[in-house]
Amino acid sequence: MKPPVLLYACPTVDQKAWVEALNAAWPGIDIRLWPDTGDKAEIDYALVWKQPAGILSDLPNLKVIFSLGAGVEHVLTDTTLPADIPLVRMVDPTLVTGMVEFVVMQVLHYHRSMPDYAAQQRAGIWKQLPQLLPSERRIGILGMGELGAACAKALTGFGFDVAGWSRTAKDVPGVRGFAGREQLDAFLAQTDILVCLLPLTDQTRGILNRRTLSALPRGSYLINAARGGHLVEDDLIPLLDAGHLSAATLDVFAVEPLPVSHPFWTHPKITLVPHAAALTHPGTASRIVAANIDRHRRGEPLHNVVDRTRGY
Amino acid sequence: MKPPVLLYACPTVDQKAWVEALNAAWPGIDIRLWPDTGDKAEIDYALVWKQPAGILSDLPNLKVIFSLGAGVEHVLTDTTLPADIPLVRMVDPTLVTGMVEFVVMQVLHYHRSMPDYAAQQRAGIWKQLPQLLPSERRIGILGMGELGAACAKALTGFGFDVAGWSRTAKDVPGVRGFAGREQLDAFLAQTDILVCLLPLTDQTRGILNRRTLSALPRGSYLINAARGGHLVEDDLIPLLDAGHLSAATLDVFAVEPLPVSHPFWTHPKITLVPHAAALTHPGTASRIVAANIDRHRRGEPLHNVVDRTRGY
Repeated sequence: MKPPVLLYACPTVDQKAWVEALNAAWPGIDIRLWPDTGDKAEIDYALVWKQPAGILSDLPNLKVIFSLGAGVEHVLTDTTLPADIPLVRMVDPTLVTGMVEFVVMQVLHYHRSMPDYAAQQRAGIWKQLPQLLPSERRIGILGMGELGAACAKALTGFGFDVAGWSRTAKDVPGVRGFAGREQLDAFLAQTDILVCLLPLTDQTRGILNRRTLSALPRGSYLINAARGGHLVEDDLIPLLDAGHLSAATLDVFAVEPLPVSHPFWTHPKITLVPHAAALTHPGTASRIVAANIDRHRRGEPLHNVVDRTRGY
Repeated sequence: MKPPVLLYACPTVDQKAWVEALNAAWPGIDIRLWPDTGDKAEIDYALVWKQPAGILSDLPNLKVIFSLGAGVEHVLTDTTLPADIPLVRMVDPTLVTGMVEFVVMQVLHYHRSMPDYAAQQRAGIWKQLPQLLPSERRIGILGMGELGAACAKALTGFGFDVAGWSRTAKDVPGVRGFAGREQLDAFLAQTDILVCLLPLTDQTRGILNRRTLSALPRGSYLINAARGGHLVEDDLIPLLDAGHLSAATLDVFAVEPLPVSHPFWTHPKITLVPHAAALTHPGTASRIVAANIDRHRRGEPLHNVVDRTRGY
């Protein structure tokens, strides 16, 4: 059996690290770096991240499409995507590790009043601020998938009061569960720090907007580490300026890279991270892609195939 | 048996919250608010934090001295302190909780390059920075007592590579142990993020100085959440300015409140917190004091008595 032929089509990602890692994970793999596809009929698999639209539709023997990240909406926006080819999303334990680190870090940052202490430092003010017990702080997580459930588990380990909201009810130990549109407002009304980890679908696009964010208690915090499309960007700054929201951490944006003129860059209550809350680790992720390729070559079921009608 | 008489002598601490909490924890307790001691012969117990020197030496029937915090060097500096009266330090689970929150928060803050991302945000730069796995980041904790061991446990839970240094060897699961002066340099040479949680004693005073901090790898980070006396303050800024240290989080200072003219306030690589890494929670701590008072009244051994020759 000849080695697999993989098209690498991730124009915004560090190519060198991935090629090295894929070669180490599947010795002898034949990697084609888009746009240098070679004979298109030879390509078995594609690894993609924000690939140009249309490049996957004329590969006659393409068998599986792998997404470099956990979210796949960047793949699904390509309307020419062959409908019958399985699409696999990345479920890399180190991606989960990175997201748990990021979410716990920013939840603690707000829980422990670090923006206020930073303001005091700038003003030369020495003053201890009230320190709530973690059980007195209510964290609300939108999205109880791989990432949301892992973050919920880590936060309950710190003693926080954690609730989760998802499309359908999920049972996560120690987490109060809310489900569906009809329970969204009740969920928001009891959330001091809101963490968005939803998949981006037609149902979740724009879910963070003036109405929903206003349903949070006054003084609450927002952490969006999911997708820029979840947030109606024009709605955020007025809520921050009015003090309804105390601060926001944004890892994702409607347009990335965020345009230099965008007001998020300079807003004093916004912590801005360049879509880096959880970076896919080439070493561990390549081994996961390689294992799925081997499964496919043996005729076994693939892991983590996306349900395209659901969108994740 | 008449109710206990407790002298409250914590001039820098919020008195109202403590009086309420002590009354709730020991209904009927007779609290004297220093300097209004009433009949000094009636005073059984004293709860102190940075009390003026000499005020405990003329209480003829004082039975136990309770410190409001985990550290007691602020009590021991009073040379008139009666030598035969037990001194009890605060071992409050919520104090441990607060310290674990603070240390994990700042370790993650440095691990995830947040100061660099903040600098990029100020400059309008969109650039993903290398994201190390937690197993690739070496955390070194100075002090493996209640607080150090709890922080080590939380950090190993995140997958960090954790080492601990203490006066005598301690066996903490998953933590590489170093002990004594002869192993200090080896410990420092393998530490990317140094966390100081030592008690302040004659042996540990000034332990963070030009020589020891220079023994850290270039680009490492310092978090001092123990006592200001551990750090030779004049040695820190040159190491930050030279880039040998990337950044420092300081919760404690030689003089507190930190004088307004001190250069730490405005240094861009210093995160300054006003001795608030872990605040004693009046509610839970009062119940611990009350339980120890009850133990003493029943003739049972007190918990958490300080060994004054050791200093903690």
